[in-house]
Amino acid sequence: MSTNTQIRLAARPVGLPKDSDWEITEEPAPTPAQGQFVVDISHISLDPAMRGWMNAGASYIEPVEIGDVMRAGAVGLVSASEHPGFSVGEHVCGTFGVQEQALSDGRGVMKVDPALAPLSTYLGTLGMTGMTAYFGLLDVGGLKEGDTVVVSGAAGAVGSVVGQIARIKGARVVGIAGGPEKCEWLTGELRFDAAIDYKSEDVGRALREHAPDGVDVFFDNVGGDILDAVLLRLARGARIVICGAVSQYNATGRVQGPSNYLALLVTRSTMSGMVVFDYAARYGEAAAELAGWMRDGSLVSREEVVDGGVRAFPRTLLRLFAGENTGKLVLLTDRG
Amino acid sequence: MSTNTQIRLAARPVGLPKDSDWEITEEPAPTPAQGQFVVDISHISLDPAMRGWMNAGASYIEPVEIGDVMRAGAVGLVSASEHPGFSVGEHVCGTFGVQEQALSDGRGVMKVDPALAPLSTYLGTLGMTGMTAYFGLLDVGGLKEGDTVVVSGAAGAVGSVVGQIARIKGARVVGIAGGPEKCEWLTGELRFDAAIDYKSEDVGRALREHAPDGVDVFFDNVGGDILDAVLLRLARGARIVICGAVSQYNATGRVQGPSNYLALLVTRSTMSGMVVFDYAARYGEAAAELAGWMRDGSLVSREEVVDGGVRAFPRTLLRLFAGENTGKLVLLTDRG
Repeated sequence: MSTNTQIRLAARPVGLPKDSDWEITEEPAPTPAQGQFVVDISHISLDPAMRGWMNAGASYIEPVEIGDVMRAGAVGLVSASEHPGFSVGEHVCGTFGVQEQALSDGRGVMKVDPALAPLSTYLGTLGMTGMTAYFGLLDVGGLKEGDTVVVSGAAGAVGSVVGQIARIKGARVVGIAGGPEKCEWLTGELRFDAAIDYKSEDVGRALREHAPDGVDVFFDNVGGDILDAVLLRLARGARIVICGAVSQYNATGRVQGPSNYLALLVTRSTMSGMVVFDYAARYGEAAAELAGWMRDGSLVSREEVVDGGVRAFPRTLLRLFAGENTGKLVLLTDRG
Repeated sequence: MSTNTQIRLAARPVGLPKDSDWEITEEPAPTPAQGQFVVDISHISLDPAMRGWMNAGASYIEPVEIGDVMRAGAVGLVSASEHPGFSVGEHVCGTFGVQEQALSDGRGVMKVDPALAPLSTYLGTLGMTGMTAYFGLLDVGGLKEGDTVVVSGAAGAVGSVVGQIARIKGARVVGIAGGPEKCEWLTGELRFDAAIDYKSEDVGRALREHAPDGVDVFFDNVGGDILDAVLLRLARGARIVICGAVSQYNATGRVQGPSNYLALLVTRSTMSGMVVFDYAARYGEAAAELAGWMRDGSLVSREEVVDGGVRAFPRTLLRLFAGENTGKLVLLTDRG
């Protein structure tokens, strides 16, 4: 444990990231200067958005530069500190990167309590994932009681929370996911009203059955053909929340734009983008409500924790794009 | 003049409407029953939206059925009346269809005053065209003083009014149109801040020059490549108003969806559809303001009136899709 294993971006991927797009480096364990502390990272968040960060060019956040440690949200334990606000033995959450140890000055770092929830949950429902679901559905989507809500990527980290919040708020909830196991989880443990298996069902026909009065809110994590199918089933005045487009992130040609976007005109609907950082001032409010729902059993938080160590990051990331995870995908490091 | 010449839909077009998609019929001049009146139609409105009405399937309005007189807004003179509310000699505007005479029960019919504005203007700036521009820009687009507004199809009926309203309301206005004559008209008589000739310029590069701080409101009549180019130049929190997509109406394959739609996410922007009929209760308010601007010279209303008679409708309609008109395209009948 005298060295810090890190995953760095070696090349900008074309399509799915390959092994050669990554470099594994070993550095001496960091030592904190005045105003700094060291985090021993135990859990690393894996997110579809990471694929976008690997591309050159301006987006809602700067790209990861070639040679940099890959950006990632993570949770860990303060193991050394010269910072007055952070003490050895405290658990913290921040953008610590894909590595075993991080040096921090405390900016953007939150303390977390392992007695209240498992550490992995602070990367999921009580972390950026939950914040994205909460503000995307309630603020951008303008959810109202009685709405019919459809969510794509419904068995994923964000989607599974979106659907449950919608159900708690009195909406009818239809999830779109890939495979019977995921769909059974949605309608079983998560108590969605219906689930559509896009791998075996015609999504348009299934929506006609499960959303007979049309879709009031569509929370889209996927894009592509699924977005096009839902566009044809919008209710008047529907709201589409564009959270992501995991089906398109590894496209090597043009992104598949929504061919049916003129349905927005016919139905007087709105398609809006959202970035969770805009809601930072209200994270506390959302986390308190989400934690309350978890405590009373109305909201289930599921994390799929892969015990692979930092070196497993490249292949674990690919699980997201293959749709292999259910709930939040988290990598456990050797320090976890 | 003892017969009523009519243009009826003979077949649903594939791509651009062909002569064989139309049937010209002659009927005896209509006679009003109790509660009805006859309109001698002088001016017929030509609109890109007509192409959509010719397709089967549900939209924001019922399709025109095969064999029906083609739907059209029109202006004319009451020539016979058994209706207590409408007298011979009054001018009226309504959805009278592509024909020389219409029988009406008065529903949806408005009286118009030829002393206040040329009759063709009641199909343009003081008609549905102007209403679409007014409510689309101000209500759906949420225009604010100081915004940078981009409008496509800027030399067309709706676009030319949109840009002028934006200028009157204190916005910076950039129009996108095809050809140097249209662009000169926009920056000359209409006093747009800039015009981009999409036929000879790279729209993305030109937007970088003319909208250096990004686009706050995009009013889109065109779709396709132009929509994609503007998506890459959105300011934070931009509003895209989807009014139409004339570049796509005659597509025989899939409509070209906006490949760059994930820019909505990056910029936290919104793309909304609109249908003017939703604002019917407020048409009077808009018409009064538009008429005031026309009177004081701040808003120019231009109609291109084709003196061709009803039989010229099929070929005149094609001018819209070839981008040949400047301002509102109106067909003068033999009764005009």
